[in-house]
Amino acid sequence: MVDEVSAALVIIGNEVLSGRTQDINVQYIAKGLGEIGVRLKEVRVVEDDEAAIIKAVNELRAAYTYIFTTGGIGPTHDDITSECIAKAFGVPLLRDPRAVERLLRQIKPENLNEARLRMANIPEGADLIDNPVSHAPGFKIGNVHVMAGVPKIMQAMFDGIRGSLKGGRPLVSMNVTIHMGEGAIADGLRQIQDDHADVEIGSYPFSRDGQYGTIIVTRGADPTTVSTVSRLVATMAESVGARIEMDSESA
Amino acid sequence: MVDEVSAALVIIGNEVLSGRTQDINVQYIAKGLGEIGVRLKEVRVVEDDEAAIIKAVNELRAAYTYIFTTGGIGPTHDDITSECIAKAFGVPLLRDPRAVERLLRQIKPENLNEARLRMANIPEGADLIDNPVSHAPGFKIGNVHVMAGVPKIMQAMFDGIRGSLKGGRPLVSMNVTIHMGEGAIADGLRQIQDDHADVEIGSYPFSRDGQYGTIIVTRGADPTTVSTVSRLVATMAESVGARIEMDSESA
Repeated sequence: MVDEVSAALVIIGNEVLSGRTQDINVQYIAKGLGEIGVRLKEVRVVEDDEAAIIKAVNELRAAYTYIFTTGGIGPTHDDITSECIAKAFGVPLLRDPRAVERLLRQIKPENLNEARLRMANIPEGADLIDNPVSHAPGFKIGNVHVMAGVPKIMQAMFDGIRGSLKGGRPLVSMNVTIHMGEGAIADGLRQIQDDHADVEIGSYPFSRDGQYGTIIVTRGADPTTVSTVSRLVATMAESVGARIEMDSESA
Repeated sequence: MVDEVSAALVIIGNEVLSGRTQDINVQYIAKGLGEIGVRLKEVRVVEDDEAAIIKAVNELRAAYTYIFTTGGIGPTHDDITSECIAKAFGVPLLRDPRAVERLLRQIKPENLNEARLRMANIPEGADLIDNPVSHAPGFKIGNVHVMAGVPKIMQAMFDGIRGSLKGGRPLVSMNVTIHMGEGAIADGLRQIQDDHADVEIGSYPFSRDGQYGTIIVTRGADPTTVSTVSRLVATMAESVGARIEMDSESA
């Protein structure tokens, strides 16, 4: 797609890979980026492991417009993201006075021990990302945005930086719910997709009360085309005898 | 870790990357693997894109013991996983009579159109994976296990193959809930981790009713060590004035 603005996300956390924690950050970031026309192209979940983090960040920052990371910027021994990002960029990790000042908004001076001060260690040259929830900042270096893993904090950080991203043309989508299994409409769908390369047609089967159905999601930059293609899908499905429901126009 | 049995997961699906669908397959697979001593080391979410799928599968199958994929094996034009896996392995994709026979358990012969028959296209040399829900099979080739994306079907496929995997020593874990922020216990935790390299100590902050707290998860292969280290963590936290709650022994 012309002028596509792309993004990748690195989730840093043994707790997701062990199954202890159900990630909900992917969906929040994916939707938020989509609204400003930035397309999330890849997500990687990696362990709290220096080599794994550096490899993922360096591979992805070379491949996509924007990179986001979540997790690993707290005060404990398993929080190693900031060191890893500094190493990935080949810059020193420095105690940042701006970050210390922010920690002092939340933490009494007598409680600002060495562990908590680690949260003020920021790669040289990075800009801070505001944390309106608990003040310990994230940071941005190059095209990499380093955020907390706790969803409430991540969301606040992400909402704060989203306005600074240069987006593309947002995609709009429309759904057609077809009360028939995918197999009966697949040939017709393929034909419609072949005829309309400027939209993406996704087919998502479901079963409800023992009945198979399919949701067809048409996505594209041009609302008129998306609407036209959705109507074609609906007509095709009705022509093979399916009951359908169509979205009203939706973003 | 000695004799570690590792795994990676590739989630194939624009619907996860657009935020339309909240993935729940990672957690199911992560927990299921953990129970048999297989460690999920990496997850990638990639688009329904041939180059992206082939790259992820080939990189990961060279790096880990087992690979799992979810998504993209249905009858529609956006289901391209099977072709991509065949290309990744450099083998032809063939109409598999065993798979056709399984489709006929679910689909009447007169309804077995070309689109549905695509679900019987399997890379040469692959073994089929049972689908007790809707019969269209997954498959295994080399160390790669290709499964459906619909959670109910994926879970049935995964449960069926899990017994065939050669696991390692399962990790056990114990939680200590500490009613104090991470920063106050971080130095003590680091010391305990440094003294016990054979367990992993994860620190997960939470806030509840405006109070900060931390859950410390100790994981390792030896239950006695995990229990001992958890008690050390609890004692350390109490020594700095925190109220704590300890798990009973848990797997």
